[in-house]
Amino acid sequence: MKLWDKGISIDKKIEQFTVGNDREIDLHIAKYDVQASLAHAIMLESIGIISLEELQQLKIGLQAIAETIENGTFVIEASFEDVHSKIEYELTKTLGDVGKKIHTARSRNDQVLVALQLYYKDNLRLINEKTEVFFNTLLTLSETHKDVFLPGYTHLQVAMPSSFGLWFSAYAEVLIDDVYLLNAALKTVDQNPLGSAAGYGSSFPIDRELTTKELNFSTLKYNVVAAQMSRGKSERTIALALGSVCNTLARFAMDICVYNSQNFGFIAFPDELTTGSSIMPHKKNPDVFELIRGKANKIQALHTEMVLITNNLPSGYHRDFQLLKENIIAAIEDVKDLLDIFNYAIQQVIVKEIDLNDAKYQYLFTVDNINTLVVEGMPFREAYQKIGSEVENGTYKPDTSKQHTHVGSIGNLCLKEIREKFPK
Amino acid sequence: MKLWDKGISIDKKIEQFTVGNDREIDLHIAKYDVQASLAHAIMLESIGIISLEELQQLKIGLQAIAETIENGTFVIEASFEDVHSKIEYELTKTLGDVGKKIHTARSRNDQVLVALQLYYKDNLRLINEKTEVFFNTLLTLSETHKDVFLPGYTHLQVAMPSSFGLWFSAYAEVLIDDVYLLNAALKTVDQNPLGSAAGYGSSFPIDRELTTKELNFSTLKYNVVAAQMSRGKSERTIALALGSVCNTLARFAMDICVYNSQNFGFIAFPDELTTGSSIMPHKKNPDVFELIRGKANKIQALHTEMVLITNNLPSGYHRDFQLLKENIIAAIEDVKDLLDIFNYAIQQVIVKEIDLNDAKYQYLFTVDNINTLVVEGMPFREAYQKIGSEVENGTYKPDTSKQHTHVGSIGNLCLKEIREKFPK
Amino acid sequence: MKLWDKGISIDKKIEQFTVGNDREIDLHIAKYDVQASLAHAIMLESIGIISLEELQQLKIGLQAIAETIENGTFVIEASFEDVHSKIEYELTKTLGDVGKKIHTARSRNDQVLVALQLYYKDNLRLINEKTEVFFNTLLTLSETHKDVFLPGYTHLQVAMPSSFGLWFSAYAEVLIDDVYLLNAALKTVDQNPLGSAAGYGSSFPIDRELTTKELNFSTLKYNVVAAQMSRGKSERTIALALGSVCNTLARFAMDICVYNSQNFGFIAFPDELTTGSSIMPHKKNPDVFELIRGKANKIQALHTEMVLITNNLPSGYHRDFQLLKENIIAAIEDVKDLLDIFNYAIQQVIVKEIDLNDAKYQYLFTVDNINTLVVEGMPFREAYQKIGSEVENGTYKPDTSKQHTHVGSIGNLCLKEIREKFPK
Amino acid sequence: MKLWDKGISIDKKIEQFTVGNDREIDLHIAKYDVQASLAHAIMLESIGIISLEELQQLKIGLQAIAETIENGTFVIEASFEDVHSKIEYELTKTLGDVGKKIHTARSRNDQVLVALQLYYKDNLRLINEKTEVFFNTLLTLSETHKDVFLPGYTHLQVAMPSSFGLWFSAYAEVLIDDVYLLNAALKTVDQNPLGSAAGYGSSFPIDRELTTKELNFSTLKYNVVAAQMSRGKSERTIALALGSVCNTLARFAMDICVYNSQNFGFIAFPDELTTGSSIMPHKKNPDVFELIRGKANKIQALHTEMVLITNNLPSGYHRDFQLLKENIIAAIEDVKDLLDIFNYAIQQVIVKEIDLNDAKYQYLFTVDNINTLVVEGMPFREAYQKIGSEVENGTYKPDTSKQHTHVGSIGNLCLKEIREKFPK
Repeated sequence: MKLWDKGISIDKKIEQFTVGNDREIDLHIAKYDVQASLAHAIMLESIGIISLEELQQLKIGLQAIAETIENGTFVIEASFEDVHSKIEYELTKTLGDVGKKIHTARSRNDQVLVALQLYYKDNLRLINEKTEVFFNTLLTLSETHKDVFLPGYTHLQVAMPSSFGLWFSAYAEVLIDDVYLLNAALKTVDQNPLGSAAGYGSSFPIDRELTTKELNFSTLKYNVVAAQMSRGKSERTIALALGSVCNTLARFAMDICVYNSQNFGFIAFPDELTTGSSIMPHKKNPDVFELIRGKANKIQALHTEMVLITNNLPSGYHRDFQLLKENIIAAIEDVKDLLDIFNYAIQQVIVKEIDLNDAKYQYLFTVDNINTLVVEGMPFREAYQKIGSEVENGTYKPDTSKQHTHVGSIGNLCLKEIREKFPK
Repeated sequence: MKLWDKGISIDKKIEQFTVGNDREIDLHIAKYDVQASLAHAIMLESIGIISLEELQQLKIGLQAIAETIENGTFVIEASFEDVHSKIEYELTKTLGDVGKKIHTARSRNDQVLVALQLYYKDNLRLINEKTEVFFNTLLTLSETHKDVFLPGYTHLQVAMPSSFGLWFSAYAEVLIDDVYLLNAALKTVDQNPLGSAAGYGSSFPIDRELTTKELNFSTLKYNVVAAQMSRGKSERTIALALGSVCNTLARFAMDICVYNSQNFGFIAFPDELTTGSSIMPHKKNPDVFELIRGKANKIQALHTEMVLITNNLPSGYHRDFQLLKENIIAAIEDVKDLLDIFNYAIQQVIVKEIDLNDAKYQYLFTVDNINTLVVEGMPFREAYQKIGSEVENGTYKPDTSKQHTHVGSIGNLCLKEIREKFPK
Repeated sequence: MKLWDKGISIDKKIEQFTVGNDREIDLHIAKYDVQASLAHAIMLESIGIISLEELQQLKIGLQAIAETIENGTFVIEASFEDVHSKIEYELTKTLGDVGKKIHTARSRNDQVLVALQLYYKDNLRLINEKTEVFFNTLLTLSETHKDVFLPGYTHLQVAMPSSFGLWFSAYAEVLIDDVYLLNAALKTVDQNPLGSAAGYGSSFPIDRELTTKELNFSTLKYNVVAAQMSRGKSERTIALALGSVCNTLARFAMDICVYNSQNFGFIAFPDELTTGSSIMPHKKNPDVFELIRGKANKIQALHTEMVLITNNLPSGYHRDFQLLKENIIAAIEDVKDLLDIFNYAIQQVIVKEIDLNDAKYQYLFTVDNINTLVVEGMPFREAYQKIGSEVENGTYKPDTSKQHTHVGSIGNLCLKEIREKFPK
Repeated sequence: MKLWDKGISIDKKIEQFTVGNDREIDLHIAKYDVQASLAHAIMLESIGIISLEELQQLKIGLQAIAETIENGTFVIEASFEDVHSKIEYELTKTLGDVGKKIHTARSRNDQVLVALQLYYKDNLRLINEKTEVFFNTLLTLSETHKDVFLPGYTHLQVAMPSSFGLWFSAYAEVLIDDVYLLNAALKTVDQNPLGSAAGYGSSFPIDRELTTKELNFSTLKYNVVAAQMSRGKSERTIALALGSVCNTLARFAMDICVYNSQNFGFIAFPDELTTGSSIMPHKKNPDVFELIRGKANKIQALHTEMVLITNNLPSGYHRDFQLLKENIIAAIEDVKDLLDIFNYAIQQVIVKEIDLNDAKYQYLFTVDNINTLVVEGMPFREAYQKIGSEVENGTYKPDTSKQHTHVGSIGNLCLKEIREKFPK
């Protein structure tokens, strides 16, 4: 059943190709289509297109559908093109002509759009919350391990002293930047597109402010052409906000895989978190962090996909936009998983004591040695030359006594200040 | 059941996360895992690791599994991590200890790798064939409509005379360039990686040339580390070859959508190929071509995903590589569909007669006018100025009489030569 | 001259390769390096590392350099590795040992970082302003042409009535979403990284809050490892914010190129804005808009470059980060140009009267016809079938009398509300 | 001076914006424009458009220009739009009306196209050669260090024994796959587009086979519309072939940076190849390899740029294509540099002796231990369990005596076979 059936039979091959796997994907937005349909019905009654009695019937019909979605019995059969056809069919089956009236003054275009925006909004908020949970976990780990020494690297070469406290809270503070983007994406999707119909509005005197209020949107996308252009804009923006979170997750996971290598040996994980090899019985591989890294990297590629699908298309709806749904929804679901599993796994990290006397770590303290000389009055560039010569001649002796006290240093992590920076 | 089970129970959350949807994806490569297992068994017998009798048993066991795959009854239950565990389990269940011997001298790493390469090879050949079918269709359409006039555009501005013959065969000839890349990808995957084990080979005296011959690979990837690095290299190469084919399909589909617009009106399609609108009863939208364009554009983004998943990982296997499978297999399946459906739909194109007297097309012939003057002896730059002035003054009269006769022009399409260029 | 010279001569080939074209790129950040050096010097004096007199000398020295930058006489000669070496050299040449002291308690890492963040911050604000100028131009054009009819398309097929007022203000409202991202990028760069030294802080008791205040940063990136990770994070975030603006510009430019085609003929531009062809004297090509589109599309690819350069690198500085500068700075300069030239060119648009009686536009009004029937009491789906039959039978008569009155429709553009939505 | 000047003055801002930095970029293709102009002139004479005497004059004129290009005195002044205008101007200045005749039967479109294809062809061949040089260097290094032990990693965890011989020749063999793509790109650009004029051919009876022969193209792009579509297709194909080479270079450089870290300590480089830090006097950073990695990663992003600039543009030339030149030419020049510098630097590698008795490497040999048991008759899965238990109980003793003898293993590198695989 199609919303646009005109009595001409569509070529079967073409039909199968054009419907694709929409039925499966649409289960994610079914709930939001019901919400938006309800708001639309309330508005239709308010402007006299349907009667109060008809509205009551529609409310009951939509509520019944909402319950099947909630309890998992809602199914989009192969005879339906998408969730929207299915829901309208159910209403009409139950309510007769009243069901047919629900599509008055809207098009499938704005119907899909508003359901997607509601799904995006709900889920971006969830991702925001999960990011905050992870952020707090990292700050707690930072506090717990704040005094454990960690070599700091630049160019993958031993560089200067660092600490686990610094490492954990670094990723926490970086997540704040990702939240700025998540919030920008939230603002982008938090604008009601309902009423834009096929992208050019309607000759019905619809009340778009009412549906905006009913659906708890902060504002509406006024211009109906702009509302239609949210298709693509929302997905590109979400893709890049998710990609930003994922960049942080991927880099952190990379550190974990490196630090967990025998050649670093800075951290370990309980056996229950590692996986084995089909031929090497000694292996305890950090697959979970490799998969976090891999999935997070994959999601960083999504933005390019969203751009390519929409690029250089003149304004107005194109069917290509249908293809945006699949991977953006998959990525949203994945990011929620990634944050959950990372948050769960990282709490089981085993932080190791690192031997400061290991020869390879002796040069970590050259800068501190230089600074001692500088404080004693030697210009920096001369002190640098002096310690450099000692290193060259093999006479260098590390000075591990220096305290780092400034804001944000190993001796002064400012966890409270970082916690307060998290955007509300 | 895992190939690497060591008696330690793995955290359930972690297990679910790491397995992902491998079971579903692996159905595509089940057949090839059986083929490679058979070749491996033949080789093991040849070097005396298993007896001839054991080989016979394994052949029967593998054949039985191959049949369930063929007839669609093969299932990877939730208790198995992947297709490889499932097949080894089946063999062991049926054959006892002999089944356990099949994994001698191989690792899951080269087992996955060889199955994937076989799948890729088979499917790249199929895509090559389907590209040739589409190529031939386009040449046939070019021949059929070779004399039908079509305005040629540059900058989307009316430019010079073209023809449907030129348009159809242009896309045919461009496909040849895509086939160069498909063939390069074929060469990349047509190298036997079996025997590389976990990426560092084996202390067994395995005969890699024998499995190469058994599996019909043209050569082998000698170096075992290089063989392991095929993971990622194959997928990146296939992604870009598919992306190249898709670029041609997407651009052609864009032309079709533009030419099918009422503002061009150069082509149409039967109602059975078009789709309607939920609010506009007059609509006959070319959704099938928009979805071809959209899917083809999406596949052009895949290369970035393949690069991002593998980028900057030090040599040696990483679990991230597991994530390459999903979308490259989906893209391969999609490209086969795209070629089929495009080939099917384009044959139903209705080519329209275009009115040469339409005012907007009158300037198509200015270059031909200039050329007439040049042939009469006027230097080109002067003739250009003269006709330019006529256009400016409104005194220009189109000369539609000129013949274009050179190789590759509207009057001399060289379809035979283009056909012969298609790489064998 | 290098900041890290140790008396070992570096291979010439290697040196040339590693320096690259930094000297040229660094001219963009020279001014900001002076600003940050000044703030650093003020801080060094406040904690007693340098004397008040030394600070005065440094102020004079830095001021002199700032003037050469301002008046365009500042040059980074081939003997310097980058702008930072050059500036330190100049200070030392003029001030002697005092000049050498400026590098106390900082590293080239945080020196580059802070100069870049200051450059980014300044320029993102400029881009924000230019976006607002363009936004206002579009609203003005919308107001001017609010009643001029424009066919609305979906699937590139004639769909429903639109207007120039709707078209211009649509792009204005979409720009607001881009500004959300620009503002998120601004927040990301508006955090002082100075004091992070080589990414692990310093044993000097530096006062990072003082430099934050001196440099007008809203806050500081507390954690020094997080500060170092701004390298890459800033560039990725800016790339995607610019890419978002550019997506809007590119789509708008595409519309312009389409509407300017003879087959649409909705708009034109004065001859002075168009370019010709070397062989077709009649051509007046909209090259300026094609180049806006092309450049804007190119900038949308930048995010992938920024990700690929930084991806999967373990934490800590890597020299790869040096490569981020070139194209992000080029893109920032380009976006400023694109906004200027688009704003300049669009104001010269010639809006054409479009003939409503043209046969190809007659179906634009089918939805309005349906709506009339619905208001008269017919359920929507029946009215849809009725008008659909009329279209099919050729008995359809357009009803062009309907008014669109709802918020955001052609009859009620809500320009004031859109203007108020622009983020402050 | 413009090839299309019509006496209307173009807006200065617009002109500056549209010309961009073409003059600088075009220096790379000047030589090829002269070559193609010469072939075009020879052809024009052969079909009687110009006289033999005029051809002689043009030959002399073009030869003179070729010499200025060769000796570096050729300059494109600001008064010219591009190299093509400049060369035509020079010819006309020297030869008068004869110079004006050179543009007969061609357009700037095919003129740019053919010059670019010639540049691409020459340079892809050069890159091919440089890749072979690097390939040979790696095989030589492999031979030299074939018996030096190297730990093999999977999941960045100690896995199985490897060797420097295996490591160096792995990257050599992987380069072969990249050459398949370079060769595919070569085929794509090795087709003469000259004669396609503005993309729709010409009414002159031009002889395209003659220019094909004169310019040493293997074949021609027959269809003139297809020839025009080479714009973009060539660049996308080259971008992905270069990206593939760069992927190999980047991964190799990553290995080098990791193995050069103190925590691995597998290799080192002479001081002359390393760079220092502005604050850490002990640093000897492998910047050259980090920059190889970074630049190679950057070039992997180029394909997305090439796709985005051309995507969804209807057929026919668009000015956007002008933007393809800049970064593809830069990437070609960069890849030549990368191959040279990598080839130069890698030969200075210092291969270190790695201590097999180091505790962290003891499990490298578990698989060999298992294999010993299997050869003695134990089924593989049982042997795996047995050695696994020993590892778990701490009773494991490494068996370092096993020889790896099969094709492609550490004991049998097959360097000769790999050398023979390099495509001719």
